[in-house]
Amino acid sequence: MKLLEDRIRKDGIIAEGGVLKVDCFLNHLMDVKLFHEMGMEFKRLFKDKPINKILTIEASGIGIACVVAECFDVPVLFAKKSQSINLSGEVYSTKVQSFTHKRVYDVVVSKKFIGPEDHVLIIDDFLANGCALQGLIQLVQEAGATVEGIGICVEKGFQDGGRIIRETGIQLESLAIVDAMDPATGEITFREQ
Amino acid sequence: MKLLEDRIRKDGIIAEGGVLKVDCFLNHLMDVKLFHEMGMEFKRLFKDKPINKILTIEASGIGIACVVAECFDVPVLFAKKSQSINLSGEVYSTKVQSFTHKRVYDVVVSKKFIGPEDHVLIIDDFLANGCALQGLIQLVQEAGATVEGIGICVEKGFQDGGRIIRETGIQLESLAIVDAMDPATGEITFREQ
Repeated sequence: MKLLEDRIRKDGIIAEGGVLKVDCFLNHLMDVKLFHEMGMEFKRLFKDKPINKILTIEASGIGIACVVAECFDVPVLFAKKSQSINLSGEVYSTKVQSFTHKRVYDVVVSKKFIGPEDHVLIIDDFLANGCALQGLIQLVQEAGATVEGIGICVEKGFQDGGRIIRETGIQLESLAIVDAMDPATGEITFREQ
Repeated sequence: MKLLEDRIRKDGIIAEGGVLKVDCFLNHLMDVKLFHEMGMEFKRLFKDKPINKILTIEASGIGIACVVAECFDVPVLFAKKSQSINLSGEVYSTKVQSFTHKRVYDVVVSKKFIGPEDHVLIIDDFLANGCALQGLIQLVQEAGATVEGIGICVEKGFQDGGRIIRETGIQLESLAIVDAMDPATGEITFREQ
């Protein structure tokens, strides 16, 4: 998606340790106009799928998921990173390793809100090693629901997550795939799509 | 807001310990159509304010804030509950006690994204004792920005947060104020507004 690639080139910052910072429009300050454009693009990419629910994971996926959900006219379910007293009752649960925070989270969704009748589009802001996505896919499958597709804003193509998930046959669409970043020059190479 | 009050009466669950569960449409499964209606109502309530940014706190405020932000045509900044490696650099920071999780969080926003030029509407899903809101107000003031108002979906009128914040003179609008809940009968009493 050229609009997103241009924005990443303009405002993205290549930080140490293979980190691409897009916190000025994607995951701290959030440009909801851009989110709407991304939502319309996901709607185009998944137009043939009978999606009735969007699943994401807290925290930075939630905003994008909600704006995308308006384009699909469906509700959003967000997976929580630890069980709180407001989530009593039965949950589906999995463990996710966070690249960013260097720790393992319990990730849960209430069994009340996902089941075999659901056709789910998973939305997240970033895809790197894919641990969070694998966890979300597992939650959907545990619920007996169907993963109709996965929509990602920014994929790091030089990490393994995207390849591994595409090999499972799930339709994974990343609006921008960064194949290389040069911290010295600031140059970012996007995959042709 | 009658639409929200009716929904709380229909789908809200009064749980032990003074907890009102609205996780089937507000803060786990999220009804983005309802969020849009709430956004339009906030737009009406704050129509005279020169709002150029919405501030919320992760996680459950983010979805509502983003949909509301579309109605105001402004970006969203969300305060993060702990400092991650993606948030390097200077931050404004405060501590917030969570009623739900019974712990104290560090809450931060990047100094890059808020400053004296900002006129901020704070949005959150719930207001009970007001600790999270007090923290957000403090962050805005520390940045030299202006709190133009606070928009809340559900306020627990039988806790102190709303009264304390209104006494500071800030325009606080809660779309539903629960003055009493009876766990035995399931009856919920809303404040007339």
